[in-house]
Amino acid sequence: MTAGPMSPDALEAALRAIGAERYHNLHPFHRRLHGGDLNRGQVQAWALNRYYYQSRIPAKDASLLARLPTADLRRAWRSRLEDHDGTAPGTGGVARWLKLAEGVGLERAYVESTAGILAGTRFAVDAYVALVRERSILEAIASSLTELFSPTIIAERVSGMLAHYSFVTPETLAYFTPRLTQAPRDADFALGYVREHAVTVEQQEAVLAALRFKCDVLWSQLDALHFAYVEPGFIPPGAFVPDDRR
Amino acid sequence: MTAGPMSPDALEAALRAIGAERYHNLHPFHRRLHGGDLNRGQVQAWALNRYYYQSRIPAKDASLLARLPTADLRRAWRSRLEDHDGTAPGTGGVARWLKLAEGVGLERAYVESTAGILAGTRFAVDAYVALVRERSILEAIASSLTELFSPTIIAERVSGMLAHYSFVTPETLAYFTPRLTQAPRDADFALGYVREHAVTVEQQEAVLAALRFKCDVLWSQLDALHFAYVEPGFIPPGAFVPDDRR
Repeated sequence: MTAGPMSPDALEAALRAIGAERYHNLHPFHRRLHGGDLNRGQVQAWALNRYYYQSRIPAKDASLLARLPTADLRRAWRSRLEDHDGTAPGTGGVARWLKLAEGVGLERAYVESTAGILAGTRFAVDAYVALVRERSILEAIASSLTELFSPTIIAERVSGMLAHYSFVTPETLAYFTPRLTQAPRDADFALGYVREHAVTVEQQEAVLAALRFKCDVLWSQLDALHFAYVEPGFIPPGAFVPDDRR
Repeated sequence: MTAGPMSPDALEAALRAIGAERYHNLHPFHRRLHGGDLNRGQVQAWALNRYYYQSRIPAKDASLLARLPTADLRRAWRSRLEDHDGTAPGTGGVARWLKLAEGVGLERAYVESTAGILAGTRFAVDAYVALVRERSILEAIASSLTELFSPTIIAERVSGMLAHYSFVTPETLAYFTPRLTQAPRDADFALGYVREHAVTVEQQEAVLAALRFKCDVLWSQLDALHFAYVEPGFIPPGAFVPDDRR
């Protein structure tokens, strides 16, 4: 007996179950970051590498925007570009992440060059951009659904980092404040789209696979960071070396 | 004062210097693999993940072949497809790697499915295939030049693995025997092409960057393996779990 497609509610439950198993809040690196167990160089490595992810999000969203068929859909998705690239120089998520990186002691030009990021970061982020560019619109939208899970991790991160790191200030973490409202708004839209359009078994399997893939993108970035800068701490040739490791 | 382009000999020396600093024979995972410091499950994880790399090499070579402009170049490059895909079922490098994987105790169908590989493996290998598909022919050819460095690592690997692992036989490692002659032949061709065609500063910088990128592709695969299966040994959700870790 072959099972038919799931109801929208069952599909949503299956999507949320992926987050409960695979979202990167479960990664040991995040526990250490939020728990105050990292030193300044390790936090710098996180900020530096994560900048590459932030900086490629608008490319990801623009490539999807270019394929969306209606003005309604494009207008809804366009708000993500405004959130990340801002409405004036120095505004938006990418600029706020640069401030975060500067706040923890990195040179802005070095961060923007991405010269010191880990290969694992680059390959994971590029894989995400490629998925959104090359797969169906449905899969591309589904891959954004990790935002369903992000408000929890952001709240943990901000409170944990402010409590534990003397070199982190509320201004440094200003990136995260608007994300607490932007991410749920974006996730609601994407979830509604997926609930409505993933109606066959094949489409439902594709959206579940896309969300697992995206969880892998986030998780493997932390694998690479943890390996290089925490345990065992083997920094690959050419990657950022914190002051205390020089 | 701006430096002009390097001579072919100086360019070759610069390429070889990249290998001396960044080739994955320097990675701690390889030292452990060759030194007999891994258990059977860790060797299985290596064979399983490396299969994905092997399986995508013909796709990489075919995408370059499709862009090469002359019959002479295509004929020379076509030998790589014959080496990897064979001339009859059960022959060629991909088939021999499956025998290696079976020889260390993995199920062939599981290996071929690539279901249990690390996300870090997939993203790194896909990044290599994308580079060869999307960048200039010169960069695509230069990215193959890690084969300049492979005979040494193969000799170390075969002798080390046979000496240290009771579950590894000469038949299991039959993959490597033809590589000892194929890799130098291929590397000589690619090196000759690069020496002849990378004549401007920009071209020379591009081929050096392509070789560094390829070293990153190999290195980051070992980072992911080492992190998941050796130190600290955090296997990501969904990845292969050896018998002794279940």
